Amino acid sequence: MTQKLQTPNTVWHHATVTRARREQLNGHKAAILWFTGLSGAGKSTIAHAVEEHLHQQGHRTYVLDGDNVRHGLCGDLGFSIADRHENIRRIGEMTRLFADAGIVALTAFISPLRADRNIVRRLAGADFIEVYCRCPIEICEERDVKGVYSKARAGEIKEFTGISSPYEEPDKPELVIDTSSVSIEESVAAVMACLQRRGVGRPGVPADMLNQAA
Amino acid sequence: MTQKLQTPNTVWHHATVTRARREQLNGHKAAILWFTGLSGAGKSTIAHAVEEHLHQQGHRTYVLDGDNVRHGLCGDLGFSIADRHENIRRIGEMTRLFADAGIVALTAFISPLRADRNIVRRLAGADFIEVYCRCPIEICEERDVKGVYSKARAGEIKEFTGISSPYEEPDKPELVIDTSSVSIEESVAAVMACLQRRGVGRPGVPADMLNQAA
Repeated sequence: MTQKLQTPNTVWHHATVTRARREQLNGHKAAILWFTGLSGAGKSTIAHAVEEHLHQQGHRTYVLDGDNVRHGLCGDLGFSIADRHENIRRIGEMTRLFADAGIVALTAFISPLRADRNIVRRLAGADFIEVYCRCPIEICEERDVKGVYSKARAGEIKEFTGISSPYEEPDKPELVIDTSSVSIEESVAAVMACLQRRGVGRPGVPADMLNQAA
Repeated sequence: MTQKLQTPNTVWHHATVTRARREQLNGHKAAILWFTGLSGAGKSTIAHAVEEHLHQQGHRTYVLDGDNVRHGLCGDLGFSIADRHENIRRIGEMTRLFADAGIVALTAFISPLRADRNIVRRLAGADFIEVYCRCPIEICEERDVKGVYSKARAGEIKEFTGISSPYEEPDKPELVIDTSSVSIEESVAAVMACLQRRGVGRPGVPADMLNQAA
């Protein structure tokens, strides 16, 4: 049957490829893993380690973090409360699109305000898995991987979370990781167990097997 | 080996799951199919038909259009030239993230200004495939699927492309589809041939076979 574009009655507009069909093709469910915590708490490190693990098991994944968002989609935003709010709003909307695309989306942003995170939680519903990377600020500051704490103390960085801007701990995160005491491997295992409990993870199919089929 | 988070020297920050690894897992390359044209020219119809075809062949796909972007990520934007510019900028940035995630991203926005589309083209490089859905405005207006042309003529919609706001045809689109004369099937075939020429398409593996492997 040939559908002509110029006949309004037969115009075929809507998406026929649904999230459910994408998840079926992928062999796993989509989800949003939202890592929150102070700078230096280990959000990005753990998110990338979880992604590596998920990928090796054949999951479709994507990490959103400062590296690929702050200079692109949110390149017009600064670090005021209003801009942080808009930053989280856009990232939240984007993770919803990634989940709709069948992907396990991981985000690694400080996302300091409870209200902002809860907006994403409400939008994303059951997809939203909040992972609180808990770490005393003294330890984050001691690590100071990016040298940002010393700059914040020297007043070179304004509105720095934990020093000159607030961080609000999550009320009821789906998972808490005490990153001052656990290893990366233990952190990954905790996240994977959380995904399994929610029925997100796929059975451990080696990536090689999938490649052979493709 | 156990990597401790608190040892700065062993902090493992960067992404190890690359676009290339995602493409290998998926069995096809990522790309950006950017449909442009007047309202009613068939952008969304063709984008969704192409997505259906790609999905059936086992490609990972996602369509960005007014339905899932205008009320979400770009919900704060109107239809002024400045807002249209920002709209296209954000969508462009988002398609880059989708391509990085290994997905064939399809966009169906009027995207009336050449300069805005060319910003995305420069950012996206070889990923960017501009598909011009060419259709005389008289025919688009005759179709008027959404009833927007009559509202624009009545002055109820301001800054409506083709009537009270400009549409600039692409200079060198990768593909032109004359949607006043070709069928949806012919349009899909033209896009698929274009993807094949660029080495994006995967060999036609039935989706069933992939599911069995998964």
